[in-house]
Amino acid sequence: MNAPVRYLTGITTTGTPHLGNYVGAIRPSVQASRRPGTENFYFLADYHALIKCDEPARIQRSTMEIAACWLAAGLDPERVFFYRQSDIPEIPELTWLLTCVTGKGLLNRAHAYKAAMDRNAADGRDADADVTAGLFMYPVLMAADIVMFNAHKIPVGRDQVQHIEMARDMAQSFNHLYGAHFTLPEAAVDESVATLPGLDGRKMSKSYDNTIALFGPAEQLRRQIAGIVTDSRAPGEPKEVEGSALFQIYQAFAGAEETEALRRAYAEGIAWGDAKQLLFERIDREIAPMRERYRDLTANPDELERILRRGADKARSIATPFMARLRQAVGLRHLADRGQAAAEGKAGKHAALPSFKQYRESDGLHYFKLVDPQGRVLLQSTGFESPREAGQVVARLRGGSSAGSEQHIRRSEGVSENEITQALSQIAHNG
Amino acid sequence: MNAPVRYLTGITTTGTPHLGNYVGAIRPSVQASRRPGTENFYFLADYHALIKCDEPARIQRSTMEIAACWLAAGLDPERVFFYRQSDIPEIPELTWLLTCVTGKGLLNRAHAYKAAMDRNAADGRDADADVTAGLFMYPVLMAADIVMFNAHKIPVGRDQVQHIEMARDMAQSFNHLYGAHFTLPEAAVDESVATLPGLDGRKMSKSYDNTIALFGPAEQLRRQIAGIVTDSRAPGEPKEVEGSALFQIYQAFAGAEETEALRRAYAEGIAWGDAKQLLFERIDREIAPMRERYRDLTANPDELERILRRGADKARSIATPFMARLRQAVGLRHLADRGQAAAEGKAGKHAALPSFKQYRESDGLHYFKLVDPQGRVLLQSTGFESPREAGQVVARLRGGSSAGSEQHIRRSEGVSENEITQALSQIAHNG
Repeated sequence: MNAPVRYLTGITTTGTPHLGNYVGAIRPSVQASRRPGTENFYFLADYHALIKCDEPARIQRSTMEIAACWLAAGLDPERVFFYRQSDIPEIPELTWLLTCVTGKGLLNRAHAYKAAMDRNAADGRDADADVTAGLFMYPVLMAADIVMFNAHKIPVGRDQVQHIEMARDMAQSFNHLYGAHFTLPEAAVDESVATLPGLDGRKMSKSYDNTIALFGPAEQLRRQIAGIVTDSRAPGEPKEVEGSALFQIYQAFAGAEETEALRRAYAEGIAWGDAKQLLFERIDREIAPMRERYRDLTANPDELERILRRGADKARSIATPFMARLRQAVGLRHLADRGQAAAEGKAGKHAALPSFKQYRESDGLHYFKLVDPQGRVLLQSTGFESPREAGQVVARLRGGSSAGSEQHIRRSEGVSENEITQALSQIAHNG
Repeated sequence: MNAPVRYLTGITTTGTPHLGNYVGAIRPSVQASRRPGTENFYFLADYHALIKCDEPARIQRSTMEIAACWLAAGLDPERVFFYRQSDIPEIPELTWLLTCVTGKGLLNRAHAYKAAMDRNAADGRDADADVTAGLFMYPVLMAADIVMFNAHKIPVGRDQVQHIEMARDMAQSFNHLYGAHFTLPEAAVDESVATLPGLDGRKMSKSYDNTIALFGPAEQLRRQIAGIVTDSRAPGEPKEVEGSALFQIYQAFAGAEETEALRRAYAEGIAWGDAKQLLFERIDREIAPMRERYRDLTANPDELERILRRGADKARSIATPFMARLRQAVGLRHLADRGQAAAEGKAGKHAALPSFKQYRESDGLHYFKLVDPQGRVLLQSTGFESPREAGQVVARLRGGSSAGSEQHIRRSEGVSENEITQALSQIAHNG
């Protein structure tokens, strides 16, 4: 019963996903969300989208399509945290708190910003021509996305590693000034990311205009597959799998046995038309049920909206009390808060605080409870095999995990969620 | 019944105000808040304070002391909007929206940032050494403070005019991209701001360590006044009012007649000790009741907190529905929102919208009502003398004034505030 590792993935909400995005990002990410011992956060990065896109209808439509894509591809909103960034008002607030602890020099060194400056220099323009403050500040927003949920691991491509390191720097600066509030995140770079060839054999990418639509109609899929480049070998002539885009795409969907079968068919001189039919059928077998779900979802934006709102509620059950603690930490406090006296050299008397008690029962199991200063039990755990396991849950609760997101604990009769949140916040700040 | 002019004043929440702040800023600003035909917004800029101050207890204490100062000095929270910036979560969110429409080059030219770079250059350091992103982004936060409430006039010193111009630029950029949502603010520079001499005759300023405390004990006031520099003329010798700090301070508190009397007393050779006693009495007459109120307030932070929370509620009755419209404008929308179809080249059918109807009753007065597409009356006005007056209220409601902040209107039985907000938002976006 180790504490779960938190993974957090931001999803760009511009454009419409293609088959390459599915194989390279969506499918492996959805699979990863089912790993035991992990907690997985996925968010639609629509505040980020505003940096590049000033077409409101496109922002809205992309958000809808991309949310539908991920759900159709199997992301389970009950199992993971799946939310829209702009539904979490704590994110822009935390962005400001981090802005205040971030050296401008750190942002000057961001690759994306430097690349924009380099392009301007190459064009003989002012270094910051057409650079928005949004592009410049984007690493701070990204850091807020990450540290808001104390994510441990951020699955990213090589090109994003620097941003994770910057988030780490910001978290460290904050922790240094205000106490250890943030987990330091780490980039999780998967070196084995599958890239899919596109219609012309180059990497499938919107910028090459060589993509195959992910959830278009089946006929479109068939037509696009028919357009994959092949060599001119006639039916009956043996064919090379090496360098065959068609074969590589097939491999990304087929199991080992199926792949072997196609390899043999190549050697035996399968006609390109037949190979394309095989590829279409193989992809469609995987995609068709998702395509249907995708259509259902995009036809019912109310349902999608409901799913995202529920995801936001779930995410805010962590973000809201955590933000309250962060505000407390920087001094944005209730004016009568006695945290003041405590921080000002312990001048005030230290009022009694709620506390955790760990103990062993006659059943041999280890328990803990959260009691208020009057001795009333607020939370009660179930039994753990070892004191270490119980201690880990206590540590998480002390460290900012919301009681609502924890298993193995039960609120006492008549105790509100709010009381628990407040008690944990008092402990985190003063305990 | 012209639409009131909105003034917005940000109050720095670091340090403790002295007599010079009172005479130069607090007193005239409180007086200005009573001008008819104006609506006045005052906020404690605690998000800004985080840029410079990483001492949580000081942030909290300063916020308390400064809120108490302004209230003690006569600011009436019932008459004005008086709130703490960090109680308005729409502010950091709007900051992000503005960040995305602001050119980085604009921020590069901010005086405060350039001054920091110049200091670094003079010290032979890296241009951005010790410059935080907070200092760099401060004009964007300030713009959000201003345009959130569509303030017309921002009373500032000369040194702040550039920031208002930057806010104007940002509002213009946003309006250009997303429609005319923001009033373009103007700096209101009062050239006749009174500056008070300090104990040593130079301008009273914390940096000269020559200040007189505003709400210290009366004995402290007397002692500090005793420390004002004078020349060495003996009792009975005529004294010069020219260049006399004591005389100037007296003048800042006394009426014309009292000032004349002291001028005569100078000519007649009043002893410095007696003049100082006069000055103490004159200041204390004005300050003593405020000092008492200040003590009451700082002794009751719960009461202060309550006042600020009520102010925040009042401010958010404007900010929350306005932010909903701004989110709509940039594309952060309910996924089922038909605003989408409307924006996408009017591809969708334009659904029926709520609308305003203006009409004249048999009592000769002019009325309006807000009706939904089914003809149900949502809001009903009281009678106005002229159609123009009725039209102005309608214009304000169309333009983003929250129904809750308007007089002369009444919600129909069974209609929720939320319904009104939504109807107004629909009109604002599509009407």
